[in-house]
Amino acid sequence: MKNKLKIGIIGLGTVGCGVVKVLSRFDDIEIVSAAVKNLTKKRDVEVQTITNNPMDIVTNPEIDVVVEVAGGCEILEALKVAVQNKKHIVTANKELLARHGAELFDLARENQVAILYEAAVAGGIPIILPIKTSLAANKFSFVAGILNGTTNYILTKMEQENLSYEDCLAKAQKLGYAETDPTGDVEGFDAMYKIAILANIVFGKRIDVNKIYREGITHITSNDIKLADELGYKIKLIAQASELESGELDIRVHPMLISKENTISDVNNATNAVMLKGFPVDKVLFVGPGAGEFPTASSVVGDILSIKSEFDKTGEILPMTTCHHSVYANQIEIEKTQNCYYLSIVAGNNLGTIGKIGSACAEFGINLSSIIQKGINEDNKASIIVITEKSSEADMNKMVEKLENENDIKVINKIRVMQ
Amino acid sequence: MKNKLKIGIIGLGTVGCGVVKVLSRFDDIEIVSAAVKNLTKKRDVEVQTITNNPMDIVTNPEIDVVVEVAGGCEILEALKVAVQNKKHIVTANKELLARHGAELFDLARENQVAILYEAAVAGGIPIILPIKTSLAANKFSFVAGILNGTTNYILTKMEQENLSYEDCLAKAQKLGYAETDPTGDVEGFDAMYKIAILANIVFGKRIDVNKIYREGITHITSNDIKLADELGYKIKLIAQASELESGELDIRVHPMLISKENTISDVNNATNAVMLKGFPVDKVLFVGPGAGEFPTASSVVGDILSIKSEFDKTGEILPMTTCHHSVYANQIEIEKTQNCYYLSIVAGNNLGTIGKIGSACAEFGINLSSIIQKGINEDNKASIIVITEKSSEADMNKMVEKLENENDIKVINKIRVMQ
Repeated sequence: MKNKLKIGIIGLGTVGCGVVKVLSRFDDIEIVSAAVKNLTKKRDVEVQTITNNPMDIVTNPEIDVVVEVAGGCEILEALKVAVQNKKHIVTANKELLARHGAELFDLARENQVAILYEAAVAGGIPIILPIKTSLAANKFSFVAGILNGTTNYILTKMEQENLSYEDCLAKAQKLGYAETDPTGDVEGFDAMYKIAILANIVFGKRIDVNKIYREGITHITSNDIKLADELGYKIKLIAQASELESGELDIRVHPMLISKENTISDVNNATNAVMLKGFPVDKVLFVGPGAGEFPTASSVVGDILSIKSEFDKTGEILPMTTCHHSVYANQIEIEKTQNCYYLSIVAGNNLGTIGKIGSACAEFGINLSSIIQKGINEDNKASIIVITEKSSEADMNKMVEKLENENDIKVINKIRVMQ
Repeated sequence: MKNKLKIGIIGLGTVGCGVVKVLSRFDDIEIVSAAVKNLTKKRDVEVQTITNNPMDIVTNPEIDVVVEVAGGCEILEALKVAVQNKKHIVTANKELLARHGAELFDLARENQVAILYEAAVAGGIPIILPIKTSLAANKFSFVAGILNGTTNYILTKMEQENLSYEDCLAKAQKLGYAETDPTGDVEGFDAMYKIAILANIVFGKRIDVNKIYREGITHITSNDIKLADELGYKIKLIAQASELESGELDIRVHPMLISKENTISDVNNATNAVMLKGFPVDKVLFVGPGAGEFPTASSVVGDILSIKSEFDKTGEILPMTTCHHSVYANQIEIEKTQNCYYLSIVAGNNLGTIGKIGSACAEFGINLSSIIQKGINEDNKASIIVITEKSSEADMNKMVEKLENENDIKVINKIRVMQ
């Protein structure tokens, strides 16, 4: 006879309700109580007892596992109390883990409890546990992903329907893919939290989320997408982390041109993708739904079942693989990174513009990979697209500054190109 | 102080050597002994003791885990002895698991040992453990994959270089991607073993490998690939299993036309891919290296580390999630399956051929989705391509038989189309 695992849930929004529905199929898991913000809100699930105080959940001696799907950092104190009360945690809270993970994991280690968080990165895609288990033999050099469904949806629509960023954002908001205040998604915060969590487990070091370079998609125009397409690229918001030979980590979130030959260029709409490169496995790619009631519940319940499986084996829950890294990574600044660039330039219809661009690049040691003038527009301006070979971000910035000091040359956009 | 985990390896071919090299990075895992066929063969790895008798490994009381990377079914008896001697098994042997898994897993359950086999399906791609852990909350309805690197390499070359099957097979053999006798790969046996293993864990039932429909790629011509391309498809060898509403399983291996809009149509060369569809996760896709010394070693060592992690937690190795299904699936025959079809037809340059094809399809209730006549060739023959909507395989076969009874109409190829 197996013991019942007893769950308390903090948060009964979309994901919380999905978790309750999926757990109803498992007889040996019981939801004892749920904490919500608004006790009177109508929900399509029922839970034995409901409270509006998370402390009721984290101090309830009956509860084995606290499932936190409320989001935000204000829940940290309650989760610390849960850990001190020897409760295991399953959470989908990327911001909390990225900003306060170190503190929470230290406490979990002291208290011999597990913190599982498969749902915090890439929704339904199994990625955290596979890295820690099936791929545990690897030393990774690179992890990158399309980790935010909202921005991928917006960029896909901009490309497929030739619409502006603003129109596609409005569309996403109407469909519930973007929030009324879309900042967290479109400015790359959400993807930044997720790459911080991935970099932590992939490189085995603590990550300072404040040192991650972050740039959103609001400056991408449908013209950039069209020009990139003609050159054989798509534009995606990419979160990536790589380990340099020096041992330093280069972690950032920004839009990138991705060659159409790269499989992830085909990852469209709200779908997410995670790529890993390591030895001995070489390259692996995971693609799937990055959000949503049920895909996220799949990962949350997967974590609960992992704890259940430990529980069944020994009658108690042993501490499972959690973050046990204590050293902070040495993270480099964006100015020190090396990139290929796409530059969209508008210049007066003057003789010698291409020559000036060529000279400015040469001055800072930047090789051109291609340069295309796209005719003269109605304002008698020339639109010029440049793709460069690898240069440092610092040199590129100096070159752009120099070009902009020229009379009648303006760099409209600078987007990095994935190698 | 953690205990050392002691390993015996059966097989020191490409994968076995990869495992030894990768394990050399782990101080707390010791390779005690290896069994090989040929004691005098030069290898670029060293192992403490080498034997040519696998029984020395499986009866060695010092050994905790037997790693079997020899392949073939003749090793079954030795592995049974290993299990009876309470040794855990890590194996990459798809044929053995597909043909004799039930027997071995029953014995493992009796003896409370684990059998892990991440490397048996899709090489370096983590798929077995993610299905059993992160995705454990799901009820799956479909699993499909490009599970054989050799055939995917051949089909990719046929497409990209417009070469015949025979030329590409020769190329693959030269590069070591195909064996001198390529039957196991090109006739779909390898993919069949792998889909049997996947279907077993995805649907929780035992699979009779002899009831899986299997068709290889030897009948695919570069002309089929060219015509499919024009229609928006690529041709891939697909292994797939789906659960019907009746609860029966439809499992098969055969070439398929895949729409270019489907991400897996881009999985080229020796790369493998596995797609899953289930609730609550919806669709997920895993892509990565399907074979090779190091990618396969990544999965083998991942399994060893999973056992090590159990070992460290409790001082002994607890039986891990293994196959505990005892009911055989009800597998339907290919004649009862429903498919869309691509037909390549050659007919005399006579009036009424298209009409005859249309009538034959109508007689068996088969709707045409498109029909294209590709001019008249030098033999004064018309090449006609038909894509049908869904029909039963039985009806399609009757229709083809009827057409071939017509004077001067020949169905050159029939390939199923993925929906």
